[in-house]
Amino acid sequence: MVSNRSLVLLQEPTGMPQVGKDIDYRTSDIDIESAPSNGLILKTVAIAIDPTLRNTMRLSNPKPYAPLYKKGEAMWGYGLSEVVVSGNAGWKKGDILMTPLTKMSTYWRLEEGELNGPSKAGYKKIDPLPDLNVTTYLGALGMPGMTAYMSIKDIIGDFKPNSKLFVTSGAGFVGSLVCQIAKQAGVKVIASAGSEDKVAFLREKLGVDKAFNYKTADIDAELASFGGEEGIDYLYDNVGGKQLNSFLAHSAVHGVVVVCGAISAYNASKDQPAEVISNFPMAVLGRQLTVRGFIVASLYPRWEDSFWKEMPKMVQDGKLKSQEDVRVGMDALAGSFEDLLTGKHQGKLIVLVDEEQKGRWIQRNPDGFA
Amino acid sequence: MVSNRSLVLLQEPTGMPQVGKDIDYRTSDIDIESAPSNGLILKTVAIAIDPTLRNTMRLSNPKPYAPLYKKGEAMWGYGLSEVVVSGNAGWKKGDILMTPLTKMSTYWRLEEGELNGPSKAGYKKIDPLPDLNVTTYLGALGMPGMTAYMSIKDIIGDFKPNSKLFVTSGAGFVGSLVCQIAKQAGVKVIASAGSEDKVAFLREKLGVDKAFNYKTADIDAELASFGGEEGIDYLYDNVGGKQLNSFLAHSAVHGVVVVCGAISAYNASKDQPAEVISNFPMAVLGRQLTVRGFIVASLYPRWEDSFWKEMPKMVQDGKLKSQEDVRVGMDALAGSFEDLLTGKHQGKLIVLVDEEQKGRWIQRNPDGFA
Repeated sequence: MVSNRSLVLLQEPTGMPQVGKDIDYRTSDIDIESAPSNGLILKTVAIAIDPTLRNTMRLSNPKPYAPLYKKGEAMWGYGLSEVVVSGNAGWKKGDILMTPLTKMSTYWRLEEGELNGPSKAGYKKIDPLPDLNVTTYLGALGMPGMTAYMSIKDIIGDFKPNSKLFVTSGAGFVGSLVCQIAKQAGVKVIASAGSEDKVAFLREKLGVDKAFNYKTADIDAELASFGGEEGIDYLYDNVGGKQLNSFLAHSAVHGVVVVCGAISAYNASKDQPAEVISNFPMAVLGRQLTVRGFIVASLYPRWEDSFWKEMPKMVQDGKLKSQEDVRVGMDALAGSFEDLLTGKHQGKLIVLVDEEQKGRWIQRNPDGFA
Repeated sequence: MVSNRSLVLLQEPTGMPQVGKDIDYRTSDIDIESAPSNGLILKTVAIAIDPTLRNTMRLSNPKPYAPLYKKGEAMWGYGLSEVVVSGNAGWKKGDILMTPLTKMSTYWRLEEGELNGPSKAGYKKIDPLPDLNVTTYLGALGMPGMTAYMSIKDIIGDFKPNSKLFVTSGAGFVGSLVCQIAKQAGVKVIASAGSEDKVAFLREKLGVDKAFNYKTADIDAELASFGGEEGIDYLYDNVGGKQLNSFLAHSAVHGVVVVCGAISAYNASKDQPAEVISNFPMAVLGRQLTVRGFIVASLYPRWEDSFWKEMPKMVQDGKLKSQEDVRVGMDALAGSFEDLLTGKHQGKLIVLVDEEQKGRWIQRNPDGFA
């Protein structure tokens, strides 16, 4: 038995989760000598702190999309762990496990029922390249990277020659990967963001062909001039609302819309309804559009091989950049929620839990745009 | 030279086209002995009178979707003609030509430039089965049948086992074919219509599992109860508006929407805006939906063979019924526009122009539901 430290949910928070009241650390004993039958003992390496984790705290939600945390137990997130002891023939000591159910604990145990049961698809073995930081596997080579890559592959397919793409929230983590993947395929890209700084980032660091501030620009005029006579072939949409509506009016025949997010509608209420989409479904009919929503888990089985073949190389070659905000140590976990929800972070927020072996996991400067 | 009678556009109508003022018959001479070099001399057999033809009369439309009629010249429509003299190696006397540019004339000439030029895809040779009325090739085996069949094949694919489909305007010509194709594939079908008579027709003649009057029913309640826990897998939509919006709220995960029409939005104006679609794009995102618009000409190349292999047999076997309103003779053409636009017809309105050979073209009772 060794001592195991965990970040635990104490109760459902109202508003911002308060450390000491809603979430806090607890210590318990854990057996890290003998693995569960056909299961694993794991050491948590790193966890991505995502906005969706806040939903996982809504214990009173009657129809949650994903499993909710349990009161008094360790929370979890999309993360990486190292196998300490394996009781399973498919895994050995030192293997790296990627799962959205990575425990916010120093150590954790994975039972046979989970590893071989109906949700086994959620547990992936990955093989991090030694010259990349392990945190990259929670960013450009993790779920956000899979989101960008696999949705393009599955919904758009190969970009048509000389085609044009509009990316909303282009300076966001997924959006910026989409812009870079498209630019490398020779696509002309227009992207939007909500501040002048981000617009400058899109132009100067991501090299998109055109960028605008959707809060101040004339969206219709921007898309009309970018699309020209033929219109814009693709929309990669994280926002919805006016920008989606405007794309529908300026899309090319046989245009494709990837619905990745709808930020503008997430907080819609009776008092503040979502922006009206007036060009649907007439534009879909008149221009023979395809519009598709997705979650990355549905695309993973089809695109897994091709993702691991193409994307790590692009990161290694410096062709696919991204910005990570890496915090170190178990202690950094609790405070990261407030920073995430108040926007006090630069890029993807990741906590490297395994502080002891920092030098092993982080070998080079973060992969930023500086 | 023989005398050739044509229905001619005299001027762009305002409102209902007036016979004698906007459209009228004219007679001229035509050479039906020597075909144009590499072209054809044709005798018009039958023409479908479609609402889109009214748009073809809008000579002042600056950006028409399709070629417009010319003042003083014969109008055209989707129809069938018989080759009288062929100057083209690909065609012989007696062949049947199907084209949306069938002239409203007794005879007409097709030049080489048209038959072999860029728009040659619009001229199809068909091989009508001797035991079917030729008019069927403008209905269940014509453009409406292709619309139903090819859009299902291309956008939905094979129906999933035990799946559920919602068809709006299910008693319309295309909608009723969609209902029948789906029922034969074992799909559970709910369909809507705008009158009690049509709802009865859906239930009693088409055998759908559930039918409702969208003007009086609680659409949400109908779709919720039909979809149950899993939701409805497919929407075949001719209407848009509230019904589309409600489907988005009651669709299954990975649901598919075929956007075939948007009747509810066609006459939208500033004063009377189209019904708001509030569930787009959130439902597309949350349920991973695919939404696609199409025109049948885009699908034809891919599905042509399979259409001719499957559909004529279904009609012959009485598994695919449809209602045609067949008028006979060149004289019936002019008046048919008013009947079409005022709804004075039962089923697909078709004029059999070639009255002389009526017995050859119409061999059995119209293929109705009686």
